[in-house]
Amino acid sequence: MASQNRNPEIRKDTVNNRWVIFSPARARRPSDFKSKSNTANPNNNSSENCPFCLGREHDCAPEIFRVPPDPSARWRIRVIQNLYPALSREIEPSSSVHGESPGPGSTGDVAISGFGFHDVVIESPVHSVRLEDLDPVGIGEVLLAYKKRIDQLRCHESIKYIQVFKNHGASAGASMSHSHSQIMALPVVPPTVSARLHSMKEHFDQTGRCSLCDIRSDDLLINESAHFISIVPFAATFPFEMWIIPLGHSSHFHDIDGEKAADLGGLLKLMLRKMSLQLNNPPFNFMIHTTPLQDTCSQLPYAHWFLQIVPQLTVVAGFEMGTGCQINPVFPEDAAKVLREVCVST
Amino acid sequence: MASQNRNPEIRKDTVNNRWVIFSPARARRPSDFKSKSNTANPNNNSSENCPFCLGREHDCAPEIFRVPPDPSARWRIRVIQNLYPALSREIEPSSSVHGESPGPGSTGDVAISGFGFHDVVIESPVHSVRLEDLDPVGIGEVLLAYKKRIDQLRCHESIKYIQVFKNHGASAGASMSHSHSQIMALPVVPPTVSARLHSMKEHFDQTGRCSLCDIRSDDLLINESAHFISIVPFAATFPFEMWIIPLGHSSHFHDIDGEKAADLGGLLKLMLRKMSLQLNNPPFNFMIHTTPLQDTCSQLPYAHWFLQIVPQLTVVAGFEMGTGCQINPVFPEDAAKVLREVCVST
Repeated sequence: MASQNRNPEIRKDTVNNRWVIFSPARARRPSDFKSKSNTANPNNNSSENCPFCLGREHDCAPEIFRVPPDPSARWRIRVIQNLYPALSREIEPSSSVHGESPGPGSTGDVAISGFGFHDVVIESPVHSVRLEDLDPVGIGEVLLAYKKRIDQLRCHESIKYIQVFKNHGASAGASMSHSHSQIMALPVVPPTVSARLHSMKEHFDQTGRCSLCDIRSDDLLINESAHFISIVPFAATFPFEMWIIPLGHSSHFHDIDGEKAADLGGLLKLMLRKMSLQLNNPPFNFMIHTTPLQDTCSQLPYAHWFLQIVPQLTVVAGFEMGTGCQINPVFPEDAAKVLREVCVST
Repeated sequence: MASQNRNPEIRKDTVNNRWVIFSPARARRPSDFKSKSNTANPNNNSSENCPFCLGREHDCAPEIFRVPPDPSARWRIRVIQNLYPALSREIEPSSSVHGESPGPGSTGDVAISGFGFHDVVIESPVHSVRLEDLDPVGIGEVLLAYKKRIDQLRCHESIKYIQVFKNHGASAGASMSHSHSQIMALPVVPPTVSARLHSMKEHFDQTGRCSLCDIRSDDLLINESAHFISIVPFAATFPFEMWIIPLGHSSHFHDIDGEKAADLGGLLKLMLRKMSLQLNNPPFNFMIHTTPLQDTCSQLPYAHWFLQIVPQLTVVAGFEMGTGCQINPVFPEDAAKVLREVCVST
């Protein structure tokens, strides 16, 4: 592979304002990357005592809604409260983020109430069905369940940002093997999100263009659908990281409609299947990167949401913790070529 | 424990400008935290084929220096090149960071040459000796080896930041079990470092005080020595994270002298032993957070170096990757109390 003869290179992720070191000396051949922990048989908890399975609804925290809503029909998707929420919906929000009050520390430390929401989206009633096993419309229904829940949560004026994410596999943070994703609604805008918005605005101010509307590159393209493209980003933080980006400019994920959700469902299914086939069913995470809610009234010309998929193939170690820079052994062009060429039977 | 009855709280790490969610609902009792992977017998590579062991010097990449320097004496520490360096010392640095040239991507992507240095510090000639097994003066010698190598590297005008770090245990990123640490010299200042400096400067501008000179708090203190304190930070990112901070104001780690190095060696040894005893020999990382080199000519009144120790007890998952916010199940006051009370035999 070409990368074996390349010198290391440091690339700037201009969307997130991060540096990434591409280091071919540390690489296997890109086509040889495989996960050591195959998650195809998710047996870290079995269906026998899984509270997410059909018929076990009473073992879960309260339900928020189900799809379809008819309680006498068999459900396909349930959105429920997390039994061990990281944030509490039952306490008072701090009066405002600007009203940060000094905490008990000695140097003007800042602490606010842990008010917020932490929900779970059960993606199927069947224990062994993975998200990628659903058809495009079925995955689209999961995406529309995210949208519906976001539309409920964004009515709370204390909620500033909503993070949708999926952890698949124990080493990617999933404590339950039954396929699910999570939604957390936060009373602060995380600095990572502020930095991304700031960086995208800077690009827009300099060029008059949205950085993600312009991102298409033949070298980095994996696949495309009617409304989305999937790429390996130019400064991918992790090997075989993928971004799925709407072709039309859109600041907020929750503006998605049914047609686009099914179309995204198809492309997401293809990316997850390619990842499973090529990388040996790795543990993975995906995250929807959207725009803070205070900006929800209008489309921001510089803010463009996207979905990031990260197979877990490497370990975050001292260098990465110290600097915030990642070392990626696979050049994005090589990862894109491998992923473009994976043959998925239909 | 008190934390079991607490509501979740969101704290701001004002040194690093990060939010951390403290979420007792997800916690075991702080005193029950144990690592699942005990690293006390580091046998992922054995001494039989370990190139870091005494007598195997010719299996390693070139040596930079050894302690003591006399080649006929038995060495205690060797500083060598990394056989698989993430950055290359053999290529030309890009002319300047400001001279960022557009890369091959489509939207003003930025890429610079992967020039830099990546060295390894072998902390002992004996395979089974861990850093915490050395006496304070011996650990001080390792710290002085870092200082000596930094003093060499900072002569290169292309080098902007030097990261010293240690990965211990395979799941913390160590590919070799023989005790070692690493030094990477970078041609850019990582954004995480810039953000830390910016945040410390902001605190200084508002209060006239350095944020780390003022950090002492009885609730968060673990131990102290003549020249250093160890604390759990008010907004610790990870459970049982520890910071060792010089009591006297100092911008750059490499200004340390022999007396302070031995004193730091003693406190570092104590913290590593407490961590091993309390948390079942967890994999861990430590990082020295210092100040970029362009500021090296003088002490900066707001910049204060420190050493961060992070036992690996949790997994970074989708929420953390999406937001940059961590969820920490252990309140820092509880972690500090547990660590303060660990009884280490001398």
